[in-house]
Amino acid sequence: MMYIPDIIKIKREGKKLSEKQIDYMIGEYVKGNIPDYQAASFLMACFINGLNERETFYLTDIMRKSGDIYDFSDIEGIKVDKHSTGGVGDKISIPLAPILGCLGFIVPMVSGRGLGHTGGTLDKLESIKGLSVNIGKTQFRKQLQSIGVVMAGQTKNFVPADKKLYALRDVTGTVESVPLITASIMSKKMAEGIDSLLLDVKQGNGAFMKTMKDALLLAENMYNIGKFFNKNMIYAVTDMSQIIGDTAGNGIEIMESIDILKGKCMNSAYELVREFSIMLLIKNKIYDKRKEALNAFNKVIDSGKAYEMFLKMISMQKGDVKCLKKTDLLSNRMIEIKADKKGYLKSMDVYQMGVALIHLKAGRFRKEDNIDHKTGIFMNKHVGDAVDKNETIMKIYHNGVYEEALHILKKSFILSENDVPFRKLIKITKGIE
Amino acid sequence: MMYIPDIIKIKREGKKLSEKQIDYMIGEYVKGNIPDYQAASFLMACFINGLNERETFYLTDIMRKSGDIYDFSDIEGIKVDKHSTGGVGDKISIPLAPILGCLGFIVPMVSGRGLGHTGGTLDKLESIKGLSVNIGKTQFRKQLQSIGVVMAGQTKNFVPADKKLYALRDVTGTVESVPLITASIMSKKMAEGIDSLLLDVKQGNGAFMKTMKDALLLAENMYNIGKFFNKNMIYAVTDMSQIIGDTAGNGIEIMESIDILKGKCMNSAYELVREFSIMLLIKNKIYDKRKEALNAFNKVIDSGKAYEMFLKMISMQKGDVKCLKKTDLLSNRMIEIKADKKGYLKSMDVYQMGVALIHLKAGRFRKEDNIDHKTGIFMNKHVGDAVDKNETIMKIYHNGVYEEALHILKKSFILSENDVPFRKLIKITKGIE
Repeated sequence: MMYIPDIIKIKREGKKLSEKQIDYMIGEYVKGNIPDYQAASFLMACFINGLNERETFYLTDIMRKSGDIYDFSDIEGIKVDKHSTGGVGDKISIPLAPILGCLGFIVPMVSGRGLGHTGGTLDKLESIKGLSVNIGKTQFRKQLQSIGVVMAGQTKNFVPADKKLYALRDVTGTVESVPLITASIMSKKMAEGIDSLLLDVKQGNGAFMKTMKDALLLAENMYNIGKFFNKNMIYAVTDMSQIIGDTAGNGIEIMESIDILKGKCMNSAYELVREFSIMLLIKNKIYDKRKEALNAFNKVIDSGKAYEMFLKMISMQKGDVKCLKKTDLLSNRMIEIKADKKGYLKSMDVYQMGVALIHLKAGRFRKEDNIDHKTGIFMNKHVGDAVDKNETIMKIYHNGVYEEALHILKKSFILSENDVPFRKLIKITKGIE
Repeated sequence: MMYIPDIIKIKREGKKLSEKQIDYMIGEYVKGNIPDYQAASFLMACFINGLNERETFYLTDIMRKSGDIYDFSDIEGIKVDKHSTGGVGDKISIPLAPILGCLGFIVPMVSGRGLGHTGGTLDKLESIKGLSVNIGKTQFRKQLQSIGVVMAGQTKNFVPADKKLYALRDVTGTVESVPLITASIMSKKMAEGIDSLLLDVKQGNGAFMKTMKDALLLAENMYNIGKFFNKNMIYAVTDMSQIIGDTAGNGIEIMESIDILKGKCMNSAYELVREFSIMLLIKNKIYDKRKEALNAFNKVIDSGKAYEMFLKMISMQKGDVKCLKKTDLLSNRMIEIKADKKGYLKSMDVYQMGVALIHLKAGRFRKEDNIDHKTGIFMNKHVGDAVDKNETIMKIYHNGVYEEALHILKKSFILSENDVPFRKLIKITKGIE
């Protein structure tokens, strides 16, 4: 038996922890044999003095092994997933998963809920009547075998270490740490039984990583941990200083996802879905050349197979495919924000837009808050667009209470008299050179 | 209401905390409104990033105010106390308190128990049959009014914040921090209702502060906090690289204290008692000159008043003054360690001597361990003394089990062939220039 304060002191003094020490500290904490206060002190020491890559790997691995570890090696096909660090309007996973399924990949995707000002894939999926994201181990495997695509939440016994540690970090001021965030994300991704992972690291005023420096630090850290696990890793640092695509909310993002799947929407969300598909195809050697991969992508869209796969997935997860109409997914109460002058849309404060969405009840102030799936915003204009006086900048779909959101959203963008360059969407990638 | 993680984050980032933030964090923790895990994370952030003097003062003050604050301003006389940071054989308080009482001071001394390898004043006092250190607020005042001297332990409501914080620090790896140690010590001393405090900061291999640099850091910090409270402060950094005086244990240190009080013992313990008395007399302007203070000191010893005061104090605290004989205080089982060669006593490993004392049951491995008050060691030789072959270096008083202690103590000193200088006892002082 190790003496806990001695392990804490090592990190307190900024020294390196051994695999055994990390295993003991985290393993016994998760089992309930170490009290919260010792774990809290340990986490603060890790936060301030950091963990190197090897320590982060040990932490990730012990967390990964804390519950069920999925193994789908008996199912034919390359298992892939994409993870985003969180943004506003980030529905990418929803069209991407069925498309990857059509392209021959197996997609065992375990997603999360909205965090802070950002939205969550599970919340968006639950806009679809009846759809369940609570998928047990057995059903998970069955669905993968049947259609190759699952979009689920964490079950109770999927990386329970992360749930326990995250809850503690949330109340002890130890959230914003690159190694702790890395271990939290990667422990889950490495328990999914995947071969290849694409990390979408969001950067900008609507992301948790505001600067390129912070985004790259996190991206590199997660990438290297994935390599420790022998996974085919890719990361992309992508722009989060404007809403992704045209919409932000829950039901409204499902509508946009359907449009993407049907090839009826050519915006920045579509572009990310397309490029991420191509990256995974090339990384995993399905195709050598971008052109071939692009053709394959276009084919699954144009043939209607992508949307078909989406409907299959909904059905298998008990969702009602008859409830995908606008009236099912979006409030009929809407107000518009119009330009008070002619000009160009120069910038958005996406963090504030995320806060406005919470005021519309598209997100949560507190964990226990309920979400209204039918509220959200539609962006008629994007950064760089020319705007005429009185032209609509955005539409706000609400449930009657919109004063606070309207107040915030009115101030959430800047119009410039001068021409503004369009923003680069994918800034840096690694793993597909 | 403040959001606790936000307060934690300030210190996590190494920024300064306001008085309000420290008050809220510590005040609400002590009241039980903030859980241990948040306090633990906060303490680790304080440990690693430090507290400046103003923050330490705020922390000390909120801890001080967490329970009863003693006020003896209505009792005539200057109220003084001495505090030691802990050593082996450090019985200084026991003869000093009655002597200070005879010199006209009021001495409301609240002492502690043994910590780690060091002894505790309360444990030593309890060697005296019947003597109680559990003295309530009312009796404390009565005894001060009657004889001017009390030697007590912390009551349940005396600085409860320190008890709660210390217990948490003990298990979360946050003990050895200068500002946290300062706040712990000074919150208690500043609640005693004293006018003047002498800090005896022990330095050397038997002290918590091994180096002069660390000792001075702690000394200056405590001194400055005392000045914030407008107290007449003195500190002395004193040698803790050999046993203080001739004895270490509990009953055996009471015997040595009695000899000091009777003027029958002229060793280093006596020297500290004398010098500390003189320092407090001069600092508090009872006398201008060292010679006058020394005369007054000698007078209370030679007249027998000092020992008389000691007996009065014992009686008032329910101790049996008939039980102060050697047979009451010391085991009759003894073994000696003799020199295996002729030489000079070069050095002692006082930390190991402290550990040996725990093996003799003169101290505790765990809080719940019982103490044997009759065990201990007597040093026939001190650093610098010439030693003949087969001459006794030390006597070990035990209760039958002594193998481990003997093993340690045999290796706890070094004999040198060359002449060795005597060690300077009082190294640095401040406040009495």
